[in-house]
Amino acid sequence: MLRLNLIAQDKNSKARAGWFQTDHGIVETPIFMPVGTQGTVKAVNQNYLEHEIKAQIVLSNTYHLYLRPGTEILEAAGGLHKFMNWQKLILTDSGGYQVFSLTELRKLKENGVEFRSHLDGSKHFFTPEKVIQIQRSIGSDIMMVLDECAPYPCEYEYAKKSVQLTSNWAVLNKNAFINSEPKYGHTQYLFGIIQGSVYKDLRKKSAEDLLELDFDSYAIGGLAVGEPTEQMYELVDYTTDFMLFDRPRYLMGVGRPENILESIARGVDMFDCVMPTRNARNANVFTWNGTLSMRNAKYKDDFNPLDENCNCYTCRNFSRAYIRHLFVAEEILALELASIHNLYFYLELVRQARAKIIDGSFYLWKNEIINNISIRN
Amino acid sequence: MLRLNLIAQDKNSKARAGWFQTDHGIVETPIFMPVGTQGTVKAVNQNYLEHEIKAQIVLSNTYHLYLRPGTEILEAAGGLHKFMNWQKLILTDSGGYQVFSLTELRKLKENGVEFRSHLDGSKHFFTPEKVIQIQRSIGSDIMMVLDECAPYPCEYEYAKKSVQLTSNWAVLNKNAFINSEPKYGHTQYLFGIIQGSVYKDLRKKSAEDLLELDFDSYAIGGLAVGEPTEQMYELVDYTTDFMLFDRPRYLMGVGRPENILESIARGVDMFDCVMPTRNARNANVFTWNGTLSMRNAKYKDDFNPLDENCNCYTCRNFSRAYIRHLFVAEEILALELASIHNLYFYLELVRQARAKIIDGSFYLWKNEIINNISIRN
Repeated sequence: MLRLNLIAQDKNSKARAGWFQTDHGIVETPIFMPVGTQGTVKAVNQNYLEHEIKAQIVLSNTYHLYLRPGTEILEAAGGLHKFMNWQKLILTDSGGYQVFSLTELRKLKENGVEFRSHLDGSKHFFTPEKVIQIQRSIGSDIMMVLDECAPYPCEYEYAKKSVQLTSNWAVLNKNAFINSEPKYGHTQYLFGIIQGSVYKDLRKKSAEDLLELDFDSYAIGGLAVGEPTEQMYELVDYTTDFMLFDRPRYLMGVGRPENILESIARGVDMFDCVMPTRNARNANVFTWNGTLSMRNAKYKDDFNPLDENCNCYTCRNFSRAYIRHLFVAEEILALELASIHNLYFYLELVRQARAKIIDGSFYLWKNEIINNISIRN
Repeated sequence: MLRLNLIAQDKNSKARAGWFQTDHGIVETPIFMPVGTQGTVKAVNQNYLEHEIKAQIVLSNTYHLYLRPGTEILEAAGGLHKFMNWQKLILTDSGGYQVFSLTELRKLKENGVEFRSHLDGSKHFFTPEKVIQIQRSIGSDIMMVLDECAPYPCEYEYAKKSVQLTSNWAVLNKNAFINSEPKYGHTQYLFGIIQGSVYKDLRKKSAEDLLELDFDSYAIGGLAVGEPTEQMYELVDYTTDFMLFDRPRYLMGVGRPENILESIARGVDMFDCVMPTRNARNANVFTWNGTLSMRNAKYKDDFNPLDENCNCYTCRNFSRAYIRHLFVAEEILALELASIHNLYFYLELVRQARAKIIDGSFYLWKNEIINNISIRN
C-alpha cells in the first residue's frame, strides 16, 4: 500500500494536506503532475521542471512509450527515469484512455483490447498482464491498471457492462502485478481506477469491487470527459467517500485550476492535466487574475510580466509585449516561456492550497481564488 | 572607432586573438555570434544563451524587427536589449541581405530599395538614413550599413555597379549616423560592408571607398552565397589585407565550423551563421568527431551523449537515444537540446581557437580539428 501521511484536514470541506514517500522521494499533497506523455513535458526541459516549476512527479503514458521508443530501448536505458534523466517520481497511465480514444482503430475483447497504432497502423493487443509488463519495463513509481474508460454520454447498460469489465480486468491487473517484480530496484505501486460514468450506483460498485482487491491506492477515472462540471463535482464528492482515507486519491485528467481547487475540497489529492502545457502552446496563460490570450494586440506594448504575482523564470525576465511578439512571430521560445509559466502556476496553486489547508483558511481562500482566476481577460 | 586590442598573433597564419569593449561589455575575439533574427535565438532562452552557451554578442535583424514588433514598440520597451532581456552585446544586420533576397518583391532605386513585406505584402522603402534610424530605435551596439548584396553568380558589370551603389549609400549611411544620436545612453558603432562579389579588384575598390569614410570597423559581405569554398577563402584572405589591423573584422554569414577556422587563419575576428540553430532543428548536430544526423536509427539505443568531449547542458544530461526519441516523436524539447548543443559547440570552437592562438599552436590544431569535425557520421 501507498500510505498518505496526513498533516492537516480542512474543517469546512474534505480537503486534506499530506505526503507520501516512494523510492524516488516524497510527494507533498495536494499535488499536480505535469504531463510528459512521450517522456518529455512538452517544451520544458528537465532542469526547469525540477528547479523552476518544482514538479515532484510527472505523468507519462504506457501506450505512447510502448509505441515509441518501445520497451526494449527503455530497458536498455535502465528505465524511463534514466532515459529522460528525471530523478523524481513518475506515474504512468495505462494507456487505456488513449486506446479507447482510437474508436475506429480498436476492438474490445473479453481479455483485452486490440488496436492499431495511430503512428503506423500496426496491430497490437493490450491485456491487463501486458500493460503491467510494459509498466515494469518503464519503471514508473506509480502504475495504473488497464481499465475501460466509458465515453460520455453513456447509456446505463453500457456503463454497467464497462464497470464489470474493468472489475474483471482489475483482478488480472492485480495478479500480474503480484506475479512480477520491479526491474530497476525501486518499488512500484499499482493504483486501481474507479469507473462508472455518471451513475452513482455504478461508481459505488466499481469502488467496492476494486477495494476488495487491495490496490496500493485508487484513482477516479472517466470524469472530465464532457459531463457538466457540477455533475463532475458531485460524482467526485460521492466517490471519494468510498476511497480509503489513508491513501492518496487521484482524479485523472482534471483539470482547470478551479476544477482542481473544487476537487481538493472534495477530498482529492492528486491531479494531472494537459491543460497548462497545451493552453500555453496556444498562447493562453493562467494568472491569479484570470486567463490571458497572448496573441491579443492589447499586449503589444504591455511591459508588465504575465502575472505580477508570479515568480517563475518567465515572469522574472520577460514582458507580455515580448511574449506576444514571440507568439506572433511563431518563435519556439514562446512555447517554452508560456509552458514554464503555466506549469509554475499550477504547482503554485496546489502549494498554496496545501498551505491554506494547513493554516486552516482553505475554504474561504478557495472561493476567493476561484473568483479571480476564472476571469477571461 | 571600435578598437580591437590584440593580445596574440599566430606566427603561421593571419589569425589573431584580441578583445574589444562596448557599453554592454567586452567581446573576446575570435567570436561567433548566435543569430536571433526576431529578437530570440531560435529554441534557446536567454538564460542558456548567457550561462551555458556563454554568448558574448548576438545578432538580430533590422528588416525583421522593423516589421515585427516594429520600432514603436522597441522604443517603448527602451530598446531591444530590454525588450528581449539581453544585457550583453547586440549586432544588427541592416536587412539589406533580407531585402535583396525578396527578388520578386523589391525594386532597387538610386536612393534606396522599395520592397513588400514577406508577411503581409505591405510596401516599404529602405534608405541608408532609414536603416540607421531603425537601428537607433533598436539600440544595437553594432549597426551595419545598408548595402547591396550582389547575388552569385554575378556578372562583372553588375558587381561593379553594385559596389558603386554600396559606396554611394555608405556616404549616406555615415552621414545619417553622424547626424543622429543613440536613444538609450549607450554608444552605438557603425560597420561598413565591403562588397565586390568574386572580383578582387572590386573588393579592393569597395574596401578603399569605405575606408575613406572612416567607419568604426568593417565587414566582408556577399560571400558564402554559393561560390566555391576555396574561392571564398581566397577572397577573405585578399580582403582582410585591406581591413584595418586594429579593428575587429567581421565575415558575414559564415559558416560551417571549418569555414570559421579557415577564416580565422585569414585574419577574421567575428562570425555569424544560422547553421548551428537551423541544423539543430533539422536534427543535425556538430561534434568534435564530425556531424551526426540524430534521426538515424543507429542512435536508438546509443546511450552516450551527443559528444563525449562536450560539457553543454544537453551532453551533461541526455543521451543520443533520448534525443533521437525526441526528434522521432516530434517533441519540442529536441529542438532546444540540439540548439543548445550546437551553439555551445560553435562558441567552444572559437574559444579554443583563441586559446590556441594565444599559446602559439593554432595552425596545427586547426588542421587537425578540421579533419575531425568534417566527418559525416
